[in-house]
Amino acid sequence: MGMTMTQKILAAHAGLDTVEVGQLIQVDLDLVLGNDITTPVAMEEFYKIGVNQVFDKKKIAIVPDHFTPNKDIKTAENCKLIREFVDEMEIENYFEIGQMGIEHALIPEKGLVVPGDVGIGADSHTCTYGALGAFSTGIGSTDMAAGMAMGKCWFKVPGALKFILKGKPQEWVSGKDIILHIIGTIGVDGALYKSMEFVGEGIKHLTMDDRFTMANMAIEAGGKNGIFPVDELTLEYVRVHSKRPYTVYRADEDAVYEETYEIDLSRLLPTVAFPHIPDNIRTIDEVGDVKIDQVVIGSCTNGRIQDLRMAAKVMEGKQVAKGVRVIVFPATQKIYLDAMKEGLLETFIKAGAVVSTPTCGPCLGGHMGVLAKGERAIATTNRNFVGRMGHPESEVYLASPAVAAASAITGKITNPKDIV
Amino acid sequence: MGMTMTQKILAAHAGLDTVEVGQLIQVDLDLVLGNDITTPVAMEEFYKIGVNQVFDKKKIAIVPDHFTPNKDIKTAENCKLIREFVDEMEIENYFEIGQMGIEHALIPEKGLVVPGDVGIGADSHTCTYGALGAFSTGIGSTDMAAGMAMGKCWFKVPGALKFILKGKPQEWVSGKDIILHIIGTIGVDGALYKSMEFVGEGIKHLTMDDRFTMANMAIEAGGKNGIFPVDELTLEYVRVHSKRPYTVYRADEDAVYEETYEIDLSRLLPTVAFPHIPDNIRTIDEVGDVKIDQVVIGSCTNGRIQDLRMAAKVMEGKQVAKGVRVIVFPATQKIYLDAMKEGLLETFIKAGAVVSTPTCGPCLGGHMGVLAKGERAIATTNRNFVGRMGHPESEVYLASPAVAAASAITGKITNPKDIV
Repeated sequence: MGMTMTQKILAAHAGLDTVEVGQLIQVDLDLVLGNDITTPVAMEEFYKIGVNQVFDKKKIAIVPDHFTPNKDIKTAENCKLIREFVDEMEIENYFEIGQMGIEHALIPEKGLVVPGDVGIGADSHTCTYGALGAFSTGIGSTDMAAGMAMGKCWFKVPGALKFILKGKPQEWVSGKDIILHIIGTIGVDGALYKSMEFVGEGIKHLTMDDRFTMANMAIEAGGKNGIFPVDELTLEYVRVHSKRPYTVYRADEDAVYEETYEIDLSRLLPTVAFPHIPDNIRTIDEVGDVKIDQVVIGSCTNGRIQDLRMAAKVMEGKQVAKGVRVIVFPATQKIYLDAMKEGLLETFIKAGAVVSTPTCGPCLGGHMGVLAKGERAIATTNRNFVGRMGHPESEVYLASPAVAAASAITGKITNPKDIV
Repeated sequence: MGMTMTQKILAAHAGLDTVEVGQLIQVDLDLVLGNDITTPVAMEEFYKIGVNQVFDKKKIAIVPDHFTPNKDIKTAENCKLIREFVDEMEIENYFEIGQMGIEHALIPEKGLVVPGDVGIGADSHTCTYGALGAFSTGIGSTDMAAGMAMGKCWFKVPGALKFILKGKPQEWVSGKDIILHIIGTIGVDGALYKSMEFVGEGIKHLTMDDRFTMANMAIEAGGKNGIFPVDELTLEYVRVHSKRPYTVYRADEDAVYEETYEIDLSRLLPTVAFPHIPDNIRTIDEVGDVKIDQVVIGSCTNGRIQDLRMAAKVMEGKQVAKGVRVIVFPATQKIYLDAMKEGLLETFIKAGAVVSTPTCGPCLGGHMGVLAKGERAIATTNRNFVGRMGHPESEVYLASPAVAAASAITGKITNPKDIV
């Protein structure tokens, strides 16, 4: 019986010719990732294992991005612990404030993941790297600890859902709208412990940044991972960003999928997830009159250069609505610099937005834009659970950078085509 | 008996021909200022007074700058309260995220203070506006409440110290070095409840930004206010920034000063205040080997365009030392934009610094760069008290932007002339 793309990557990394859904396998890791929340916990577990070195100094990446620059003494102490661990273990891929960014934008940018890799990260959105044709998934701090020590991780081989993408998206429809549509279609547990494999001729119309956004949110449908086939665009990205060798895996012709969905991208509209769950979607023409207090443009989901370009295109020459706070977070220092050189940051500032240093910040109600009781945000982030961005009685609406930017200008959730 | 510049401003605002040191007078206010920490407290007191409107909607300014973009739910709730108050009272000078900056940089930039004004602010560094030949001073939230209700404030007329500035500062010596030298000379209580009046031909060598820095730190010597005579440079600043009428006051020839200090600016060296008090100064050649973990460039003291230019000049083409976090905070959105257009932000980012949106942030250990136990920062801020920037066992060294930038490059406190 044939294997899916994910199953083939996992089999190869387990030294097996073939694997079956549900089979427990131990897999060699190309990347073990942690952030400033999860790494201190993983360190504790690591020390319990009793080894005195990590399995490979080059294959571990630690990115302090959640509460940095540090929001308080406790988070500063955590970062200090991490630095000491990094020094002791001589971990090569540690990214200090000033060289860093949000982990899931930074790791591909730094070339630390390439097609065919298996990567784990103690952060749920580690599934982002599926955009590059790698298997990557979020794990807990204990698995991170074992991964750092042994370079291996146990997995139950996942089944798969197939998403056949057809056609070309309309203007103002991007990866975020597509993945919100998919999550709305299958539900937040629709892909529970399954691979979401994206295929079809429609993919050629998706930029790498669109694909990162879509793979990033696989976890919001419960997916074990989300994965894209490797095409010329992927290989171009890899050539620019990495010197590591890579392997291109393709699903077998007779691979088995539990469900297959056909999605005509040309029929999708800008899509918004209403509170308090990402599958509570409405297309932009169904949104109605939703006033907002805050706009967040950025995050591991939508803080890349294409996202900022889209937002700037909408905001260019316009002014943020009175009473609305707009906070733009380029996802890495490089993206920040590129956005500055392209004039995007100037557009944001002139429109009345603030531009933050890269940080996960408000996405998780961490800092830099936490909501008060009763406040509403539209955000390009990935989760809109109760209290996600602050007070339990605040609300988060998920959308694309274009919709978020349009809403910044009008003060209510708005279709970009109505104002550009 | 003659009056000092400060006494003349106070007398005029009290409707008196003359005042004497120690006299209690009630003074008309041109500006009442609050921030996101102090305004909610002032609002409570305001409501107790029982009036239902503020004395003048144009003469109150509220700037949420300390914990913004909001660091947590509590600070978000405070800002929400402020917004409701601003709406209810129709206060005109409220500066939302995106239009704002650090209050003491923003208020002059917005033209809300001009020569001859009396301004009070519920923030200790309100003394900054003395650079413009105004009387301004920090007060508590209760006085802010009374000021908002009545437009008046009680003062005991302060005595004065005279600082005669002579000569021209050497390269890399700026307002920050001068005021640290003065605080080191007279001590942190050397000007307790007195005016610090700066005079002398040396002033012509000081930019407006130098003067803002010096007046800003008058409070660190215990001063009631710090004040500069109005010259052509001041009037040019006022012409550019404000449309309000102004009055130029000059000290009487026979004004009485409790002490007079002569300072030869040409003999000063870059100066650093060691922990844990601003008068614990050493010149740069006496500093020795002080390794640092974090560099903070910004704040109401040194986040203006000249400060950023100085720091960028030092950092241009160089790289931040390994293991050092450098956080740059332009003090207002306008300064941020200007610094971007001049290429200064690009210099910082390329060197490995992060650039934050305007906020008081780490200066008060608020957020965006809080220190862990045992960590050391060099900062262009104004206070280095125990725990000021984080853990009680962390340390803060105060310096100019040039010294802070040079230290960023070497990882230890460094004379800019040694590396430029």
